[in-house]
Amino acid sequence: MKKENNNKPSKELPLGFVDRQEKELLVRDFIISNIKEVMIKYGFQYLETPSFEFSDSIGKFLPDKDRPDEGVFSFKDDSKWLSLRYDLTAPLARYVAKNYMEIAKPFKRYQLGTVWRNEKPGPGRFREFLQFDADFVGTKSLQADAELCVMMSDILEKCGLSKSEYIIKISSRKITEELFKKINIKNSQQKLSVLRSLDKIDRLGWESVKELLGKGRKDKSGDFTKGAQLSSQNIELIENELKKSNPETSDLIEILKVFKDYNFKNFEFDPSIIRGLEYYTGVIFEVNLKFDVKNNKGQKIQFGSIGGGGRYDNLVKNFGNYDAPATGISIGLDRLVYALMQRKEFKVKRIRPVVICVFNKDSMKEYISLQEVLRKAGISTEIYPGESKLKKQMEYANKIKSPAVILFGENEIKSGKPTLKNLKSGKEKSIEIKELVNEIKKII
Amino acid sequence: MKKENNNKPSKELPLGFVDRQEKELLVRDFIISNIKEVMIKYGFQYLETPSFEFSDSIGKFLPDKDRPDEGVFSFKDDSKWLSLRYDLTAPLARYVAKNYMEIAKPFKRYQLGTVWRNEKPGPGRFREFLQFDADFVGTKSLQADAELCVMMSDILEKCGLSKSEYIIKISSRKITEELFKKINIKNSQQKLSVLRSLDKIDRLGWESVKELLGKGRKDKSGDFTKGAQLSSQNIELIENELKKSNPETSDLIEILKVFKDYNFKNFEFDPSIIRGLEYYTGVIFEVNLKFDVKNNKGQKIQFGSIGGGGRYDNLVKNFGNYDAPATGISIGLDRLVYALMQRKEFKVKRIRPVVICVFNKDSMKEYISLQEVLRKAGISTEIYPGESKLKKQMEYANKIKSPAVILFGENEIKSGKPTLKNLKSGKEKSIEIKELVNEIKKII
Repeated sequence: MKKENNNKPSKELPLGFVDRQEKELLVRDFIISNIKEVMIKYGFQYLETPSFEFSDSIGKFLPDKDRPDEGVFSFKDDSKWLSLRYDLTAPLARYVAKNYMEIAKPFKRYQLGTVWRNEKPGPGRFREFLQFDADFVGTKSLQADAELCVMMSDILEKCGLSKSEYIIKISSRKITEELFKKINIKNSQQKLSVLRSLDKIDRLGWESVKELLGKGRKDKSGDFTKGAQLSSQNIELIENELKKSNPETSDLIEILKVFKDYNFKNFEFDPSIIRGLEYYTGVIFEVNLKFDVKNNKGQKIQFGSIGGGGRYDNLVKNFGNYDAPATGISIGLDRLVYALMQRKEFKVKRIRPVVICVFNKDSMKEYISLQEVLRKAGISTEIYPGESKLKKQMEYANKIKSPAVILFGENEIKSGKPTLKNLKSGKEKSIEIKELVNEIKKII
Repeated sequence: MKKENNNKPSKELPLGFVDRQEKELLVRDFIISNIKEVMIKYGFQYLETPSFEFSDSIGKFLPDKDRPDEGVFSFKDDSKWLSLRYDLTAPLARYVAKNYMEIAKPFKRYQLGTVWRNEKPGPGRFREFLQFDADFVGTKSLQADAELCVMMSDILEKCGLSKSEYIIKISSRKITEELFKKINIKNSQQKLSVLRSLDKIDRLGWESVKELLGKGRKDKSGDFTKGAQLSSQNIELIENELKKSNPETSDLIEILKVFKDYNFKNFEFDPSIIRGLEYYTGVIFEVNLKFDVKNNKGQKIQFGSIGGGGRYDNLVKNFGNYDAPATGISIGLDRLVYALMQRKEFKVKRIRPVVICVFNKDSMKEYISLQEVLRKAGISTEIYPGESKLKKQMEYANKIKSPAVILFGENEIKSGKPTLKNLKSGKEKSIEIKELVNEIKKII
């Protein structure tokens, strides 16, 4: 970011935030409507919680912290701290705890919303992103967890992917919990530190993760990350356990059975998947794409997952009165859109208006009535919105990729026959007003 | 808000924030798709800017303030302050200034997004709301301003309102600017104080506003608001000017001419409308509904406008290099949805799943294949997602307003004929699987 030398406000965006353009947004809208359709078909209902929660409700930090803003955007309001949600799961747990008596149990809801992470931004690392979640709250049945994986598969196929282009990786937090017992870690901070280290396996590889599990690791930039201080014996034990190829925990054995009933095969057991958030208690899963994704320089990038989730049986209980075991999935919408746009040519049409050129402001009434005819027929149309000469108007029409311009000068108005200029072919044609709609529909 | 007596996190929401339920969200989605369709037909293109901007870019406060959080949510990031946008207009101006060389001029964009106001919350006063904006940037033509009013009218009629149910009020900041000259106010703080007082005419009435223009006013709660310190002579002059019934400024005379060309009549000149934000420079307008809106206690409420906007010719210029006069409209989507839901029965269908009851977990495969048949036919279906007895399952199905349950017990599985129970009529029927889809389609 350039430093501004004057008192003018910055034209730049803070790191980790971006402007999004029409093409991406139209593809995103299309994918959102696909996801909604599938989630409704699976019986989820719509809910929206606000951006802010009381900081203590979203449970990311210790209550005695003076300024609880690590990892989240927090804000002091009178005497209490508010935070922008960092996921849609914690607010759902708060919602269920608040409305427990009124809602149906189990409670199945879907939600689309922005979440914020106040983390060190970097290339491709954003500080706000759009998530699409579906959750079951109030059920221990692993059939729910299995449904989420099957539904995710349905969503991706509805978005045009084939079975060979994605895989759902599953594991369970019971595996790491059992490991913690074996190596006798009880301290929740140390557990978290181990989980966060393990969560980096796909990005850093086992060798670096083992440093993080031990004394610590210096990254390329020279920054040192303190390790989880495990003995090399315990690190080895973890590595062996997480490289096993068959699930041994009861929940995974059970969900595999349900997958079989669904005839669902597009998954693999991968004990090295961890999921970053600490609230998971059982089955966890991650959705990975199997095709290459490139950055805007055309270089293949380590893309990671486009979604995931798992079972979190204690989150609602934390609020006090009610016990509601739960499981959910979260789709990273921006990432999914980014990847799908590389893979698939979506039939999302960017509609650009036909431009009616302005020859003379005194003829505005004629331009307006022509515009009205086209708009009534559903054709995106505008009278040139500025005050420039014809040459500039034509440049404008080309710049916005307008399909055609209409020239309706003094003579054309007299004869009642505007000239239609097709901007793709460059051809001009004099046409009766009543033929204009049909003629334009041929070229848009 | 009740004080929690223990260390459990709060189940409540901070004041000014709400959870939104399915019915409202479905109506909102429907209205959003209507608005998008109209805006595209008018030739606007889609853009999305992020939630955060550098605080100085959104220009709500003086740069030397230690903690610039009055009216906005701000966060300190390294050495710079970030703020959540309080409207979509300031970020658009920043976007245009940043991308001036690449974009078409005039630039017409639409945007949907949440905005935040860190104001004292009260009944019906929210601290986050959804806005839908359309703007023309880079044109002085009042045809643009007129188009926004005509488009707003199209949008409301597409949402089912008749011409008698809404009105677009117009005025111009040139009227207040001329008043400031007459009474010799040059100080921008004092101007702002006068504008903010005048903006309360519809809510408080002229008598209270005159107190605010003078020494100040004590409200019902006893809070005293300092006044703009105008003399009674000047206050009288303002009142007379703002009670005139015919526009005299050149911009209003011009826009009225364009309205005539559009044959657009559903507006009225009202010099008492002001619009709260200080960046307006010319024509301003406000969209008002003419039917009563009630609160959740059934009491008629002072509802105010559901949108508005106007010309802001200096906002882009403030960023430095480029001059881009502009005009825009902002629709307060939550308010529009709230009002329209009282006025109109929308044909928005809340789709609730058919529930397949679980008699025996060992039959899960049979339930799944039945579910698959229904979902493939586009019918929202779920296997009961918990682990309860049949009675509880029926209670659940009724609670979620399921249209029907399917009973597929041991005998039904043997005979291949599930029982379909219509939950509206209470009638049960034994049906061949291949007839099930047709039978269900009759009742949903």
